[in-house]
Amino acid sequence: MKAELIAVGTELLLGQIANTNGQFLAQHCAGMGIDVYFQTVVGDNPDRLKEALAIAAGRADLIICTGGLGPTQDDLTKDVLGELFGRKLVIHQPSLDTMVGFFRDRGAVMIDSNLRQALMLEGSDPLVNDTGLAVGNGLTEGDTHYILLPGPPREMKPMFLNYAIPWLRKVMTDETPLFSKMLKFTGIGESNLEHALLDMIKEQVDPTIAPYAKEGEVTIRLTTRAATQAEAYAKMAVVEAEIRRRVGEFLYAEEDVTIEQVVYRLLQEKQVTLAAAESCTGGLLADLLTTIPGSSSVFRGGVVSYSNELKASLLGVPMNLLEGEDAPGAVSSETAKAMAEGMLAIAKTDYAISVTGVAGPDPSEGKPVGLVFFAVACKNKPTEVIESRFSGNRETIKLKAAKSALYLLWVRLNG
Amino acid sequence: MKAELIAVGTELLLGQIANTNGQFLAQHCAGMGIDVYFQTVVGDNPDRLKEALAIAAGRADLIICTGGLGPTQDDLTKDVLGELFGRKLVIHQPSLDTMVGFFRDRGAVMIDSNLRQALMLEGSDPLVNDTGLAVGNGLTEGDTHYILLPGPPREMKPMFLNYAIPWLRKVMTDETPLFSKMLKFTGIGESNLEHALLDMIKEQVDPTIAPYAKEGEVTIRLTTRAATQAEAYAKMAVVEAEIRRRVGEFLYAEEDVTIEQVVYRLLQEKQVTLAAAESCTGGLLADLLTTIPGSSSVFRGGVVSYSNELKASLLGVPMNLLEGEDAPGAVSSETAKAMAEGMLAIAKTDYAISVTGVAGPDPSEGKPVGLVFFAVACKNKPTEVIESRFSGNRETIKLKAAKSALYLLWVRLNG
Repeated sequence: MKAELIAVGTELLLGQIANTNGQFLAQHCAGMGIDVYFQTVVGDNPDRLKEALAIAAGRADLIICTGGLGPTQDDLTKDVLGELFGRKLVIHQPSLDTMVGFFRDRGAVMIDSNLRQALMLEGSDPLVNDTGLAVGNGLTEGDTHYILLPGPPREMKPMFLNYAIPWLRKVMTDETPLFSKMLKFTGIGESNLEHALLDMIKEQVDPTIAPYAKEGEVTIRLTTRAATQAEAYAKMAVVEAEIRRRVGEFLYAEEDVTIEQVVYRLLQEKQVTLAAAESCTGGLLADLLTTIPGSSSVFRGGVVSYSNELKASLLGVPMNLLEGEDAPGAVSSETAKAMAEGMLAIAKTDYAISVTGVAGPDPSEGKPVGLVFFAVACKNKPTEVIESRFSGNRETIKLKAAKSALYLLWVRLNG
Repeated sequence: MKAELIAVGTELLLGQIANTNGQFLAQHCAGMGIDVYFQTVVGDNPDRLKEALAIAAGRADLIICTGGLGPTQDDLTKDVLGELFGRKLVIHQPSLDTMVGFFRDRGAVMIDSNLRQALMLEGSDPLVNDTGLAVGNGLTEGDTHYILLPGPPREMKPMFLNYAIPWLRKVMTDETPLFSKMLKFTGIGESNLEHALLDMIKEQVDPTIAPYAKEGEVTIRLTTRAATQAEAYAKMAVVEAEIRRRVGEFLYAEEDVTIEQVVYRLLQEKQVTLAAAESCTGGLLADLLTTIPGSSSVFRGGVVSYSNELKASLLGVPMNLLEGEDAPGAVSSETAKAMAEGMLAIAKTDYAISVTGVAGPDPSEGKPVGLVFFAVACKNKPTEVIESRFSGNRETIKLKAAKSALYLLWVRLNG
């Protein structure tokens, strides 16, 4: 089944809000094996909405519209479809009853325009709105199925999950479902990963192999059609094994999770604690970890030692490592090691990780932009030091360095 | 001028990422007086991309494509346009030179597929990529202007702002130019700001008044058409004065800068230094500051004291403040004060700021999610402590708290 998502709303065209409904619906369609080939955003304008609907009807079996079901004059999705299909708009009595009760309970006067929210296209199925007043619609016109959902995500999401999906399952006939598997990599760049798999990507048939990069991580998505998930995974097994053979050392998860989530789970599993001493990442590593709910159970905190003075006073890095003619300097393996070991001693954690490097835009200590040293210290074990080189602007180098620190930690935790 | 935005990428159709580029470009087009009537999302598929381009060319004067400029086999925006217009793809030598230098500096081997990123359509204008490798293109075919931008927001945004907008101003002929002025607010929520200006927003004619919120800051954009910027600003003066009269205390800039950039400039101007002691923001405050190039000249670093032990050992917060039956606890004005004063003493900076609160999702110490205490310490002056309450999920509360800390610092620095 081919689908098209149409988001209706001038506020989207003006960029006042992002089309997060599109992402939500696209994810769920993909999960149901429905191919979304196009998404369209159109304003609260009847002619342009008609145009978008006509184009979509020519290339999709299912059209999901979000927005334009509210009480105002701008909300005209139902009116436009009614006109297009020659269907009247009729009151959905249960929705009207709910609405009348809603206003009565609040001692408020119901303005007539609210009535519009209880309208549905004649011959359509109502989709109940448990979190708002506008009723949704499911209908079939010719060969095309239409689902009309409200625009506010807190109304749209429950209506889609609880009412539109069951409606959709009824109208979706004998299609073989689509299954995807995510393989997540870090510590390797997108082009290097793709280079390692180039012949496989070029010759892919079934399952399909799609790489993409996002925020310092690379994902490979395998996709195939099968009757069950088990059958789909069996079809993917050979391809997956070959990918693992080539780049398995960088594979950190088989689901859509970040490297910080995986590190957090590992720390929890092993019941060990962590602290971080950051220079060039400037707090980003701690920020990534502390964004995970519950992270305080394993992450004790850290130091952002942006100056040599703080590296010395807080982490106990010897000043003769940092400054002086023959000193290795702040960006060096020696300083990375001293930072991690200092952090471990102060925080009394099981592990400490350090990052020191040149985030740019200018070189520092005569060292090039993108040069970064990491160290992982662990109680009663020798400290490991790793040197890396990253490309990009300041923000990108910070992000790649923070993600790499997490990757190194993940490698170390896995032994 | 009518524009259409086309986002290219299967990851968008699968809902793996949201089309935030669409929102960014829509905002900027609106600011330039360009009407965006449609946005389309299409996958990495040449036929469907051609279809989307043909439809867009029939109804828009300007088509802005994002995505599909990378090195992989999936990246085919330039190939498709070249085929459609019968234009060859040619190497953009400066981009190739940059790329070759980039790999050489890193001692890395450049894979051939990277060459694709230096290609441009014959007869087009290159749009320089300062934060990545893929060159953008600006071109006119028939009556339609095309702008090709990379998909990653980190590359797309600077290319659009610094190269595509100037290119666009050149090709946008005899329209009375539109001028915008940004008023940036922080320390006040979007709904409160909008409430304070509601009558003005409802009755707006010229200039238009558009509020929108982003990442813990609120922007009001005033827009009007005029022959010159001076004339436009004169038209805006009365409205701006009234806005300042109502909510001027929260106005921190008249250009599109972040509060951290404004704080950084102020610290530089006053030649004073800063350190940060963070609990609930978990490193985000330091991350925001250190993302600014040159920030190390004023920001010395800080401590992420996520555990009580680190609050005590690194910042010298007395344990009897943190733990015990009658102790005020980690989330308290007393602890915020001790954190800031401890940070000031250790870092020997002119200012130190602290943040401690409950980021959620669960309450802590019996205190509600969103409760946050801040303190600003300064040499030889009394420490100020501020209590705030934020709403949202963990990530939002962290961001609002970090931005608020910067706002409080800005207020303090301004005396």
